[in-house]
Amino acid sequence: MNQLQVPIGISNRHIHLSKTDLEKLFGEGYELTNIKDLVQTGEFAADETVSVKGPKGCIEKVRILGPVRPASQVEISRTDSFKLGINAPVRQSGQVDGSPGCTLVGPKGNVELNEGVIIADHHIHMSPKDADVFDVTDGDRVSVHVEGIRELTFHNVLVRVKPSFVLEFHIDTDEANSCLVKNYDMVTVLNKVARLSDLTA
Amino acid sequence: MNQLQVPIGISNRHIHLSKTDLEKLFGEGYELTNIKDLVQTGEFAADETVSVKGPKGCIEKVRILGPVRPASQVEISRTDSFKLGINAPVRQSGQVDGSPGCTLVGPKGNVELNEGVIIADHHIHMSPKDADVFDVTDGDRVSVHVEGIRELTFHNVLVRVKPSFVLEFHIDTDEANSCLVKNYDMVTVLNKVARLSDLTA
Repeated sequence: MNQLQVPIGISNRHIHLSKTDLEKLFGEGYELTNIKDLVQTGEFAADETVSVKGPKGCIEKVRILGPVRPASQVEISRTDSFKLGINAPVRQSGQVDGSPGCTLVGPKGNVELNEGVIIADHHIHMSPKDADVFDVTDGDRVSVHVEGIRELTFHNVLVRVKPSFVLEFHIDTDEANSCLVKNYDMVTVLNKVARLSDLTA
Repeated sequence: MNQLQVPIGISNRHIHLSKTDLEKLFGEGYELTNIKDLVQTGEFAADETVSVKGPKGCIEKVRILGPVRPASQVEISRTDSFKLGINAPVRQSGQVDGSPGCTLVGPKGNVELNEGVIIADHHIHMSPKDADVFDVTDGDRVSVHVEGIRELTFHNVLVRVKPSFVLEFHIDTDEANSCLVKNYDMVTVLNKVARLSDLTA
């Protein structure tokens, strides 16, 4: 079985906005302010934040990530879902069909999203060159092993391959806190899912 | 390798109090009100709550679990530790030497704890009979496998054996949310730690 060392990138709750929703929240012609480039090429943390409201609660100052996208999407943790009262499904980015909505509150207006609130499916960003070395293809599922006092193995981790992608294992704050990792910690990726039958062989 | 099906018990943040600290917080001669027996024999959720204060923040209405113990202890998640600004270590219950403290705020007074704030080391409660069947002894470490879309394996899980113990795998809210489980979900316990070498064999 091939193994690869990969750095962790922890995603806190965040929002991707469509141009239309950005303008509803911040005003006509508004453009996001890049305050920090992310590891993935072209992606950035914006200075702008909005509040996310659900039936049970509200989370303020949720960071917007740029650039704008075709559709708005809110990525939260399971912990956040309980606070908001929104039963968000685990989904790949962009696959928001039938997911619940929420209210976004900005300085110039609100947006009622009919769908788009998801818990991100953990995934590994990889260039085609990394994928070749590692012997996986886009859409494969693999296992990721994390050392430490709370040593654990994530299974069913999605591999995403694109020329622009930089090698990085994306997990959310619940997943990071369950094994006490921080950004850029290195973990071991296996090139297939280690099934229970492997564990007990 | 032996396997055992075990139900999950999710521990939200909670506090165990000494009699002295209980009286400082709630008044002389005060006794806890049992509102719900827990799965473990003799343990109960009390009606009473207090606020936990750290250098960076405060968490209100933290549940007290009874009965009183020789020493006070605050069990939080890693997520809570960031909110409070308290760098709590992962520890077994009762092993609080050198752990950070906090301020507890009750209706009749405050308590300054010098130590006692920990993140609970995940563990399996087991009777001696269960331990015999499963071929483990008190203090052993094992792996626990959780199925689902966020399938994962917890390694380095402590086995605790006592005649009064009822079979249950205790994890905190971060760990539960990382694999989307709820109370009483069944998981598979292996009778040793599945090491990376097992995964890649």
